[in-house]
Amino acid sequence: MKNLTVLGSTGSIGCNTLAVAANQDSAFRIFGLAAGRNVTLLAEQAERFRPEILALEREEDAEAFRRASSFSPSKILFGPEGAAEVAGDTRNDIVVSAITGINGLRPTLAAVESGARVALANKESLVVGGFLLREAASRSGAEIIPVDSEHSAVFQCLAKERAQDVRKVILTASGGPFFRLTPEEMRSKSPEEALNHPRWKMGKKVTIDSATMMNKGLELIEARWLFDLERDQLGILIHPQSIVHSLVEMRDGSVLAQMSLTDMKIPIQYALTFPERIDSGLPSLDLSRIKELEFYDVDLNQFPLVSLAFEALEREQAFSVGLNAANELAVEAYLDKQIDFFQIHEVVTESLASQEQNQNVLTLDDIFAVDREARERTRQLLQQRK
Amino acid sequence: MKNLTVLGSTGSIGCNTLAVAANQDSAFRIFGLAAGRNVTLLAEQAERFRPEILALEREEDAEAFRRASSFSPSKILFGPEGAAEVAGDTRNDIVVSAITGINGLRPTLAAVESGARVALANKESLVVGGFLLREAASRSGAEIIPVDSEHSAVFQCLAKERAQDVRKVILTASGGPFFRLTPEEMRSKSPEEALNHPRWKMGKKVTIDSATMMNKGLELIEARWLFDLERDQLGILIHPQSIVHSLVEMRDGSVLAQMSLTDMKIPIQYALTFPERIDSGLPSLDLSRIKELEFYDVDLNQFPLVSLAFEALEREQAFSVGLNAANELAVEAYLDKQIDFFQIHEVVTESLASQEQNQNVLTLDDIFAVDREARERTRQLLQQRK
Repeated sequence: MKNLTVLGSTGSIGCNTLAVAANQDSAFRIFGLAAGRNVTLLAEQAERFRPEILALEREEDAEAFRRASSFSPSKILFGPEGAAEVAGDTRNDIVVSAITGINGLRPTLAAVESGARVALANKESLVVGGFLLREAASRSGAEIIPVDSEHSAVFQCLAKERAQDVRKVILTASGGPFFRLTPEEMRSKSPEEALNHPRWKMGKKVTIDSATMMNKGLELIEARWLFDLERDQLGILIHPQSIVHSLVEMRDGSVLAQMSLTDMKIPIQYALTFPERIDSGLPSLDLSRIKELEFYDVDLNQFPLVSLAFEALEREQAFSVGLNAANELAVEAYLDKQIDFFQIHEVVTESLASQEQNQNVLTLDDIFAVDREARERTRQLLQQRK
Repeated sequence: MKNLTVLGSTGSIGCNTLAVAANQDSAFRIFGLAAGRNVTLLAEQAERFRPEILALEREEDAEAFRRASSFSPSKILFGPEGAAEVAGDTRNDIVVSAITGINGLRPTLAAVESGARVALANKESLVVGGFLLREAASRSGAEIIPVDSEHSAVFQCLAKERAQDVRKVILTASGGPFFRLTPEEMRSKSPEEALNHPRWKMGKKVTIDSATMMNKGLELIEARWLFDLERDQLGILIHPQSIVHSLVEMRDGSVLAQMSLTDMKIPIQYALTFPERIDSGLPSLDLSRIKELEFYDVDLNQFPLVSLAFEALEREQAFSVGLNAANELAVEAYLDKQIDFFQIHEVVTESLASQEQNQNVLTLDDIFAVDREARERTRQLLQQRK
């Protein structure tokens, strides 16, 4: 029986994780749950899974939880320190890191430092703090196992292989709702159209990132840190069916791939049970029904944020921190209809152009400082456009 | 430096093996070469690779070799015993078994019994003698690593997975030149049309087997023995591009696949270097140029020999021996224009229907006896049709 803590338990990955754990209730015991402000759902989860420790975003959420729930855990924590405390508790065997955004970094680092297995769904942790997490994992011996379907695919393909035999890792991308459009046609697309993703049901921020393909850009940076790859070892292919989750080309010319139905329970479960696999109860992938798997190169003129992500693979850490922060604010502004679709990348590019790139970014504090500056700068750029 | 012996060195797999070995001449030394009657090519190979031992099919071929070659190996052997002697020499580290047909069985068994790694390209060894080879390998500790692109793909996908986690192995098939035709359209197809294979350049027998899909049927039986699978764990998908060489569905719903360009040097090299991979010098697979990978179910009315192969997965060994023998003669008769395309399966079905199925087939002698009877019976059936 393994102690499992879920950071971001009320989000999509968090709920799927609890569904996987409930399906394997002789293997996993829910030790901790950390959520944001969705007190109602957290109260339901707590009553069902009876964790030792809970963490919420704010003190008032913790109080609301006490009023809403008949179940009393041993501890109810709040604030960034609360999430980090439950994440870093040494009684955890596995921590699923699924808090969205840069807020996920501190608790993820705490989990890695504790030596637990970290099933990582929080992209930003690696994007802004890849170096830090890798160092911490090598000190503590923590395993970091990716939950993103793309990185899970790479991990599954590489599990059997020697690092020096890898020629290239190719992340697949659905291409989002706009990939068959010209840049001019994309410019006028509304948030409503961008949110209509053809394959995956996800949160708003990541759905827009999928339409700009910045999502894939962030995944490139993640893959760099997860698998210790150079820029020329990383590539992207658009694959609209989202069945092949990624490809690994070996130096003998073989290409290994992992495929599955688009159900996040598969990579989540794999991260929990690796190196074993257990029956997921999910139906088989039937390629004869899907019939065609298509693959296209990415047009960088159409998806200029991907170029910035490739650039980040060769730049200092500050560049990735600034890229992530600027993109987050630009996406927000787009969702608020302050800017149009193509201005997302224009704002990000401007913000990065005016960033001091030669800063040392070695600690959590360094990362948060660069992040704050980047957000401030991007906010000003967005103001000027109003 | 590993001692490498190539059985069937003048055939297509043999020549490709020598090309791979020449490309890695610090890793492999050619210890033995066994060939059929192509004395001229064997003499060229012997002069280039200077093996210790040679084997040819007949005594007169051995004499012709002495006259034709300026190079004198330590030993020149001939006959089935000659091939078995070089195959079973305990100085071999790796034996590539690429003699075509049931003639490959005796030397393959000798190699397996010697405890060498056996890179297996000879389908018939496993089809007619799977039980025997598996027992011999478990006694000697020999590794049997498949060279067929399909089985190599499965082997690569399974390399570090646990056997109990496998739900299904799906072999891909190009479908051959006729898979878009109706059975009626196929009936009238000439050997010349059947030999025009869209993807792989192979010998005549295997190219016809590809047009009838019996090739895939034989591979099903091979896979049963190589990977210890039950009938309901084996499937086939038609994949006309021949890029995905096979698929392995795990019980968690993940499907692992291996892809590559259609170049036999890739699986051959893998069988020689496993668990390592080395640079093949081959170009990268570019999926964005191929653009589409298609998958179709097999229509068993169109390819009735595949049904017989599925049946063989549940029947005693005698059934597979009879199936292989009858098919070989029926294909010969088709190539000689004695029967039409659809009569291949009719003759095979009739031959199997009149075979005594409850024979014990445990030894080499048993296998050869059943094989002889099946050939005799099939010959009579073919005579009656004249």
